[in-house]
Amino acid sequence: MAAEIVNPRSDSGTDQDGAEPLDSFDPAFALHRGGKMAVQATVPIRDKDDLSLAYTPGVARVCTAIAEQPELVNDYTWKSSVVAVVTDGTAVLGLGDIGPQASLPVMEGKAILFKQFGGVDAVPIALDCTDVDDIVETVVRLAPSFGGVNLEDISAPRCFEIERRLQERLDIPVFHDDQHGTAVVTLAALRNAARLSGREIGQLRAVISGAGAAGVAIAKMLVEAGIGDVAVADRKGVVSADRQDLTPVKRELAGFTNKAGVTGSLEDALAGADVFIGVSGGTVAESAVASMAKGAFVFAMANPNPEVHPEVAHRYAAVVATGRSDFPNQINNVLAFPGIFAGALQVRATRITEGMKIAAAEALASVVGDDLAADYVIPSPFDERVAPAVTAAVAAAARAEGVARR
Amino acid sequence: MAAEIVNPRSDSGTDQDGAEPLDSFDPAFALHRGGKMAVQATVPIRDKDDLSLAYTPGVARVCTAIAEQPELVNDYTWKSSVVAVVTDGTAVLGLGDIGPQASLPVMEGKAILFKQFGGVDAVPIALDCTDVDDIVETVVRLAPSFGGVNLEDISAPRCFEIERRLQERLDIPVFHDDQHGTAVVTLAALRNAARLSGREIGQLRAVISGAGAAGVAIAKMLVEAGIGDVAVADRKGVVSADRQDLTPVKRELAGFTNKAGVTGSLEDALAGADVFIGVSGGTVAESAVASMAKGAFVFAMANPNPEVHPEVAHRYAAVVATGRSDFPNQINNVLAFPGIFAGALQVRATRITEGMKIAAAEALASVVGDDLAADYVIPSPFDERVAPAVTAAVAAAARAEGVARR
Repeated sequence: MAAEIVNPRSDSGTDQDGAEPLDSFDPAFALHRGGKMAVQATVPIRDKDDLSLAYTPGVARVCTAIAEQPELVNDYTWKSSVVAVVTDGTAVLGLGDIGPQASLPVMEGKAILFKQFGGVDAVPIALDCTDVDDIVETVVRLAPSFGGVNLEDISAPRCFEIERRLQERLDIPVFHDDQHGTAVVTLAALRNAARLSGREIGQLRAVISGAGAAGVAIAKMLVEAGIGDVAVADRKGVVSADRQDLTPVKRELAGFTNKAGVTGSLEDALAGADVFIGVSGGTVAESAVASMAKGAFVFAMANPNPEVHPEVAHRYAAVVATGRSDFPNQINNVLAFPGIFAGALQVRATRITEGMKIAAAEALASVVGDDLAADYVIPSPFDERVAPAVTAAVAAAARAEGVARR
Repeated sequence: MAAEIVNPRSDSGTDQDGAEPLDSFDPAFALHRGGKMAVQATVPIRDKDDLSLAYTPGVARVCTAIAEQPELVNDYTWKSSVVAVVTDGTAVLGLGDIGPQASLPVMEGKAILFKQFGGVDAVPIALDCTDVDDIVETVVRLAPSFGGVNLEDISAPRCFEIERRLQERLDIPVFHDDQHGTAVVTLAALRNAARLSGREIGQLRAVISGAGAAGVAIAKMLVEAGIGDVAVADRKGVVSADRQDLTPVKRELAGFTNKAGVTGSLEDALAGADVFIGVSGGTVAESAVASMAKGAFVFAMANPNPEVHPEVAHRYAAVVATGRSDFPNQINNVLAFPGIFAGALQVRATRITEGMKIAAAEALASVVGDDLAADYVIPSPFDERVAPAVTAAVAAAARAEGVARR
């Protein structure tokens, strides 16, 4: 692998301090040297004529036009094609609160995935603050420069309030991918698993392990999409109205989930359940998987160690999905966020609605088409049909929902 | 020109609302459609192996290493090569306070000049706030993502305090180009004009018209470089200690300028002066130019209308410079800022010192070499020797001044 990597900023690979460079040991370090992204001009600057069009004096006419007609900023700058990938570094991958600078490799990765898969320019913005008010205020101040905000790796429950308040104050899409991206791809996989087994989502009872950003968003989306029932379990067991230890977010969750009134542990809830969705990083005993309904679906998405090993899950489940690329049915956010933002930006949507997310899930599910099989309920991230399908569906849904500006 | 322009995001040129697009009338609009910049990946993402190195799980090892050794962020992300071009849109070109969104075409222009001339990645950040505390706090929060901050088109006197406070709080270079870029290029041109006429800067008395960001910075830099004397005039006349209407910045200016004790109008100060430096946008009467010393230098830098028309200035002055590209001796900031940041980032300087700026001016002046002539005291922005010379000089000066981290 390493020999194939092309990075224009790579240097000789020796560190200034003379220590053995990390690059020598690990191709991931070699690939990351100098970072993974750059900016480029899309117009030529070869001579003073170019300079006088792209910069002064020509640029002044464009500035004046935008000052008079603010919406022209979308036509004559990169604003309408660029997303801020914003984090505070408090919940980075499975690593936790490692701070803004250590989160940058992930944010750059996200930015280049935006570009590669959705044609969306994206800029990593890792913030040196964690207070909700501070993050909201900072992003509001940055917003004139961006067409959308992708919140990333911000710990729960702060992430819920940050997203809600930002979307209230801004007229551009704000999207917390750890919540909604995961939920969209999960719903798509679930729709196809149901189709494969000749069932409707309305017939299914699901159990989600994990009441963090992803778990809460998946629960909301499945309810929105008409799931039969869904229960969410945190470390202390199933979230139910009789629990006295619930945060405001979990109290809200208790209000619209768990119609069956399950109490007790995750394992208790799994008895007879049709779907397991793991977004916790914990583990689930084989006996609990064995207690699920016949033909169950097990989406064990913890990375790198799924809550149930796929080999074990296959003993009982009709469909098994994970978060890993080395097993079939990878639930990978990159299937959703590039197309969702590309579609939203295309029509200059003011926000990303539930309808747009459900449209994204349906478009994603439909790519599988007649090739649907137990080991193919969700397309590959490298399936070139994915992003165009999601983009088109999201743009159409934005128009239908009345949030498109063109 | 327009037919040569390549912009991957250009569409058909028709607006959604059916109105005649501005593009039809003006090549500057055609060039600006879709903006002038994009991001790009510098590493390949062709398959799941690439994905697992550039993103999860490989990226986690890089994040962990940075969390343990924070300075590694400079090696394994784009931080150390990317500058935030920050404005609040209050003093944009000659247009004034047009707001953040209308400033974006200028900020994008700046960003692509950074890239084109200095190889420095730059991101436009136009802020929706104008209060000094708010701007400072916002930029401090953004700083983990950037290797430097270029302040741009922020009105005086707020710009002075913003720069000072940011540099106090951050360990990366903060540079207000309207001040220091202009000052560096002016000093370079003045050094060469002096050399042409066989004089030292210490023998010259200069008069600056304009006590805004550029005027104040030029005055400071000329004094730092050893000018014989310099007086600064604002709209009310020469800044002198006896004036009762001075702002704190101008009071400070009065303390280290105008050793000759000139009072009265700009015209009064010009009588017998060796150098006129116009950064005001006003005009100067021909009679005042005629009153200057024999062999004077006139740098009339207002754009698009120089304070003195070059034809008029040539009747009296030995060297004439302007801010325009269609006359000889263009005092253009692009000669300085790309190389200054490239040099500072190369050695991971914690700040840009006076010594680094003076080194930049000297390197810039030296590019002219033996070709020095009255109509060639400063190189062309397209002279390919400029950026490497400035970069090397600034990096060396950073080391000499003890602000380099490598």
